[in-house]
Parts: sequence; C-alpha cells; structure tokens
Amino acid sequence: MKISAIDIGEIYKKVSNGETLDSDVTIQGWVKTNRNNGSVGFLEVNDGTSFNNAQVVYTKEEEHYDLIATFRTGSAVTITGKVVLTPEMKQPFEIHVTDAILEGAVDDSYPLQKKQHSFEFLRDIAHLRPRSNTFNAVFRVRNVLTMALHEYFQNNGFMYVHTPIITTNDGEGAGNVFDVVTHETDDENSFYGQKVNLTVTGQLHVEPFALAFKRVYTFGPAFRAEHSNTVRHASEFWMIEPEMAFCDLDGNMDVIEGCIKYSIKKVMDTCKEEMDFFNTRVDTGLIERLNQVVNSEFKKMTYDEAIDVLKDAIKQGHQFDNPNIEWGMDLQSEHERYITEQVVKGPVFIINYPKEIKAFYMRANDDGKTVAACDLLVPGVGELVGGSQREERLDLLEKKMKEGHINNLDWYLDTRKYGGCVHSGFGIGFDRLLMYVTGMQNIRDVQPYPRTSNNIKY
Amino acid sequence: MKISAIDIGEIYKKVSNGETLDSDVTIQGWVKTNRNNGSVGFLEVNDGTSFNNAQVVYTKEEEHYDLIATFRTGSAVTITGKVVLTPEMKQPFEIHVTDAILEGAVDDSYPLQKKQHSFEFLRDIAHLRPRSNTFNAVFRVRNVLTMALHEYFQNNGFMYVHTPIITTNDGEGAGNVFDVVTHETDDENSFYGQKVNLTVTGQLHVEPFALAFKRVYTFGPAFRAEHSNTVRHASEFWMIEPEMAFCDLDGNMDVIEGCIKYSIKKVMDTCKEEMDFFNTRVDTGLIERLNQVVNSEFKKMTYDEAIDVLKDAIKQGHQFDNPNIEWGMDLQSEHERYITEQVVKGPVFIINYPKEIKAFYMRANDDGKTVAACDLLVPGVGELVGGSQREERLDLLEKKMKEGHINNLDWYLDTRKYGGCVHSGFGIGFDRLLMYVTGMQNIRDVQPYPRTSNNIKY
Repeated sequence: MKISAIDIGEIYKKVSNGETLDSDVTIQGWVKTNRNNGSVGFLEVNDGTSFNNAQVVYTKEEEHYDLIATFRTGSAVTITGKVVLTPEMKQPFEIHVTDAILEGAVDDSYPLQKKQHSFEFLRDIAHLRPRSNTFNAVFRVRNVLTMALHEYFQNNGFMYVHTPIITTNDGEGAGNVFDVVTHETDDENSFYGQKVNLTVTGQLHVEPFALAFKRVYTFGPAFRAEHSNTVRHASEFWMIEPEMAFCDLDGNMDVIEGCIKYSIKKVMDTCKEEMDFFNTRVDTGLIERLNQVVNSEFKKMTYDEAIDVLKDAIKQGHQFDNPNIEWGMDLQSEHERYITEQVVKGPVFIINYPKEIKAFYMRANDDGKTVAACDLLVPGVGELVGGSQREERLDLLEKKMKEGHINNLDWYLDTRKYGGCVHSGFGIGFDRLLMYVTGMQNIRDVQPYPRTSNNIKY
Repeated sequence: MKISAIDIGEIYKKVSNGETLDSDVTIQGWVKTNRNNGSVGFLEVNDGTSFNNAQVVYTKEEEHYDLIATFRTGSAVTITGKVVLTPEMKQPFEIHVTDAILEGAVDDSYPLQKKQHSFEFLRDIAHLRPRSNTFNAVFRVRNVLTMALHEYFQNNGFMYVHTPIITTNDGEGAGNVFDVVTHETDDENSFYGQKVNLTVTGQLHVEPFALAFKRVYTFGPAFRAEHSNTVRHASEFWMIEPEMAFCDLDGNMDVIEGCIKYSIKKVMDTCKEEMDFFNTRVDTGLIERLNQVVNSEFKKMTYDEAIDVLKDAIKQGHQFDNPNIEWGMDLQSEHERYITEQVVKGPVFIINYPKEIKAFYMRANDDGKTVAACDLLVPGVGELVGGSQREERLDLLEKKMKEGHINNLDWYLDTRKYGGCVHSGFGIGFDRLLMYVTGMQNIRDVQPYPRTSNNIKY
C-alpha cells in the first residue's frame, strides 16, 4: 500500500500548534455523516485517532463529487485534500477534497445509523459501538486511565507482576468461582492433577513479590461467578492490586490517595474533549465532582465514628432503606454515600472495620475487635477502593486461617515465616473506577465485551 | 510507622549522580549474606528496588554489633547508618550502621540459603525465588519489557484494548481449550447459557476495535490446554496482539520490527546490571546477539525461497532431524534456525506461507496458493513473532470459514460487511520474548507462577 496517511488527531495537533499544512494530506477512516445540497457536500470522517471528526468539503466542480455523495455512514474511505483553516467555525479546519476512494462500503443493514441509539441497543452490537461517539470516548478514556495507573505506579518504584489467572485458591474463600476444566478424560481435574479455578484476586500471589521487591502491583483480569444482575457487577473485570512491604495502614492510604488523584487528573488533562462530552451528555456535574476529588484532602473516619454518624442521621430523621444501624454491620451503599456526600462532603477513608466482616489476612488491631482495613468512599458511588494492612504475625494468621477453614496455603504462610514484615495493599476495581471517571452508569458500557450472567454473545 | 526509609536503588542513583548524602539514611530490606570476623562485619541487604545490594558495615565498637551478627540470610531488617562513598571498592558505597532492627526472622528451614541453587530447585519455591539474584533480575526485566512494549504502542498512537478472557470462540479452531464452568446446577453451561472457554487469542475481538480506532493492541493472558511438556510451552501466558486498519503486510512488518527493536533496546538501556548478569551467568553472547538484532535491518524471504534454501542445504550435506523438505510443509524450529542463523545471519521475515498451514483469517494472495503471512525468525530461537494481513474480502472469508467449519462468528464477519478495509496484525508471545531477551532457557523461569500440565502448586 503506497498511501501514506496522516492521523486526524495529528492534523488537530498541528493546527492547534500553529503548524502549516501546505501540501495535500490523505486521511483514512469511517464516515460519520454525509450531507450535500446538490452543489456542495460535507463529509464527517473519524479515524479513531481523535475524538473529533475531520470535516471534508466536496463541491460539484470537483470530479469526485458524485462518488463521495454516495458514501454512507459507516463506510471506510480514503480522502486526499487540502487542509484549510477555519478559525471562525466550530471546527478549526476543513479538508477540501482532491481525491477520494471508497475502501469498504456498507448497505442498508448497517445498524449504527446517524440517529441517537440507546445504550441498551448499542450493548447488543459491542463489536460496532466503538464507532459511536459515546463509546469512542469511553474506550479512549479506558486506554488513558489504564496507562495513567501504570504510570503512577512505575513512577513511584512499583514493579508490575503478572499474577496467574488459573489458580488452586479462591482468594478470600468467598465462593462463586469459575472452575477451569478440560474434557479430555472423564476426570475433570486431569490437566493440572487437581481442581483449579479462575482467580478472584491476585493479592495472595503478589504478596511474596512485595516481600522481595518492596513495592509491586498486579493489573489484570479477575472473575466472580455471581449472578448479581446489577449495573455494577460483571463476572469478568480488571483489577489493580498494589502491595507494599514495610508499609502500614497510613502509608497504604497515602498511596491510594496518590494514585486516585494522579490517574483522574491525568484523564482530565489528556482527554478534554471526551470529558466535556461526558459532562454535557452523560453526567452533568461530572467534572466538578472529579475536580473536587483531585483537589481535596482525603479524610479519615473510624468505623466506630461512622456507625455513630449513621445513628445520629436516623435520630435527625434521615430515611435509609436499611435503617437498622448497629456496630458489626456491613455498611450498605446508601450508608457509604450518606457519609461521603452529606457528612464529609468529599472522599473519606473508613478505617478499622469489625474483624467479622473483613478478610482473614487483614491485621488484627489491639482492641481485639477490629482490623486495620481502609475503604475509600467517594461522592457519587460510595466505595471505590478497599485495602488493609496485612496480618504479618504468623501465629495470629494461622489461627485466623484455621478458624476460617482456609487450607493449602503453606506457601502463603512462608511469607510470614521467612523475613516477614509489616505490609499493606489494596484493590481497585478498574472498571468501576472507569465508571466513576466517565459518569457511565452501567459496567456493561465501560468494558469492550462485557460478560455477565447469561450474556456472552462474543 | 514513623520510619521514613530510602530505597537502595535511590541511594545508587544519588551516589552515581554525585549527590551527597550527609545525614543518616534508613534502608529496609532482606539480608542476602552476613559475615563477620568477630570485630567487623558485612551485611548485604537487598530491598528489591535495585538489582544491587547495599553493603552494610558493622563493627564491634558499635552497640548493635551483637544483634546484627545474628541476622540470617532472608531476614527482614531495618538499618540506619551513614552512607560512606567507596569509589575504590567494587560497590560505590557502604552504610556504616548507627541503628538496626530485626523486622522478621528466619529459621534453619529457610530454603534460600547463600549457596547456588538449581533452577529446578527454585521452581519449586516460586514464592521465594524472587529473592534470588537470577529471579530478581528476571522479574525486573519482565517489568521493564512489559512497560517498554506499552510505551512503544502508546507512543505510536495505538490504543490498548482489554479483550475478554472468557469467550465462546476458540480462535483459530485449534482445539485444546480450557472450558469454564460453574457447578451450581447439573448444567455446566448454566452461568452464561452456553459453552464457554478461556481465550486462545484476542485477535478476533480486537479487530473490530481496529476498525474504529485505526491502531489498537491487546496485552493480556491467553491459554492453551496443551500437554506439550517442553521448555517453551506454558498453558497460561501473556500475549501482545496489535492490529492496524489501513495497513498491509509491509506496514505490519514495519511495526513488528519497530516494537521488537524498541523494547529490546529499552531493556538494554534500563537494565544494565541485570543484562550483564544474564550475559555472564546465564547466556554468554546474549548482549552481542541482542545488539545485532537492534542494529540490523530485518530481511525478508518468501516461503518459496526458504524451501529452496533448505533443499540446497541438504544438497550441501547439512543434516536436519526432519530432512524431508517439500513445498507445503510447516517449517520446524531447526529449519527456521538454520535460515536465520546460517543463511541470513540475522532477523528475517518469512512471508507468503501456503494457505493450508495458516489460519482462516489470513489474506489470500493472488497466486491462489499462499496467504499474506509473515513470521519473524531470529537467531537463537527461530520464530519470535507471527502476523498476517487479514482477509478483508467478505466472500473469500466466508468461503474459508465454511470450509473450516467455523461458525457463530457473524459479528466477526460484520467487520468485513460494514466499512471493512485492508488491515493487518500480529502476535507476540510475551514470555517467549522475555526468554529471548534474558537468555533464560525455560518458560517456567520467566513467569511468576508458571502453569504447565500437572504443575500448579500455587
């Protein structure tokens, strides 16, 4: 192919930098809209390198007019022409056609027509929706947010570790795992010689790496075979799980605050058009809410204080769907949102949860009742991040695991037996963070090909 | 925790930059070795932030002498002391102790003693081997190579797409997939309502994104339930799969050459100590071989030419284990290595393979016999990357899929039906690339927790 095309994103960059584009350029992309009045036509082309389209102008005098007039929405095209600056218009430049090629046509059955489509409708064409405005923006932000998180951890000396997907343990013993089998023989466990399942967390596998490299993180897929048919549950999702040796709960919260602020700020700085789109079309108030998170100091509140605050709220007449507030309960989303939105009016860590409602590996506090856990609550959603200091004392951890009937983790106990130390870590559900950053309300609308109960077309 | 420790890697950086460290520093890490002669002792400490250890000197005059003398290999320790430059010694600085704390002890059962251990032995303690020199280096390079690849693609306008792990298709129809089930009912397919398996490739899922964003890539886990018990096969591994719209086979090879050269060079520039270690201790000639790849221009040879070259080799008396060279055969590793090592003496793309030995989605050439595939061969291993131009012509692709009994991919065909275009892509087995870059000879020794047939301890 001898064509040397320029990215539309590159033209935008050059124009905004004041660079001149004297000779003709060639762009290659997909037609978003095409309209003409019989003598002059306007073709909007997007090539995915920019959220913005290039506006192509073609006139009857030009030999390609009749060809271009036939280009339907969705067609793949090659357009050559002159970049003409249009500082007085909505878009900063137009391309005046000198040559045009139809690379790939579409027929009437193309489901992504110009009109507005519902997210439900687009969900059913997950392979085509990236060409729509909303999903163009969603997946661009998904890319930038992913790399912003990598960047934060790499810049701060964290090492990326690929923890395994197929594993023999079920993490916190929460059940609801997907089993992995082969059907080569009658014995389903034959491939590995034992029962295996898809990982629910990389934490247990990454802790030994923290005890060698000091600061590490995982960033990969995790799985839950839950039938929860909510807008926030998917059976396959990506998780970031950092783990730091020689780091206590306060140090843990510093890193959580740092990475959340850094990654949100990076998205807002890098994806201005996309974020404006979300703020206007998807979630009014989004940018203000995110700015507040970036610019606020995250507060801390103990679980004990949180319970008192919720009891007070009820005394003052606040209505909760779950009004039975008592010490030992797990906080529901409505409680978390009340605290972060009405009381703290900003991000807040709830720390020191009752040990009964948290995982076996969290460090026991001296009160004998609570563990050194920290959940980050933010306005708009409630819990965004969950973390804890880990129990580094071998005897206490062994006791906890015995009580919880957690076996076959001798190797995990070795991390306490051989040069163990104070260490902490946390987990971020990446897709939920992306929902928070884009304002998208359904996890199915931030994943390329969402997997939920009874839903796996692709 | 009030201790504010400095990374050993940071001390190395400051010392090499000529910065002075006047006040005492505190380091936290794990003891590698400890020896003393009764009046002066030397403690080597590594904290995973540098391949190099810090040498801690403690003397009988100092009050912590007796404590430090008890520190065993593997212990977690906190050491405070003065950084003393030692430009005349092997290591550029020492730390003269002023305070010491034993954070986590080890007993006699600690399996990672000072002596040299075999890779086989270390494989059985995958949770502890990151603390050994070799695996410290391997996983540091793994991190750097991962980010170098991300960097290359991000810098060149590729968008990262998280393609799904659980899927209904088996990629190239190669079989040997892991099935994913839940045991909640008798019907194993009940969770998703149909049979699902672990992905063998993200390519089919990422192609629709290329036809919206022009340049995209996946980087995630893939799975093969193969019993191949070789040093190059793992049942779980990471793959990079870039895909480019409006890009033909030549453009594809440009990107392959670019990303291989960039990522290898980045590792060599960033991980000098680690690469010196591999070059000295693991694979003499490694650095020379990698430099040759970085500095050479990758050659191209057609499959037809390759067959002729192999036939000539046999005429000239060259011995192959598989001496039956005929057009239509799949090249074996020995053939590939002969071509790249003996004939081309450098990296070479073999292009235009017989259609019968390649996947259904590869573009048919006009000769009716071959497809526009390209495999990159490199000295030392043979095939490192495989790619192709994709069949964009709907009728030809449908025919191929019908012949191959590949069904249920209507959505995939849509990418040819609606605004399709010339496009290409390739796949890199990340773990094999890492083997190539480190000189490590067994895939089990470059993965954090390798999964192979009958082997899944963790």
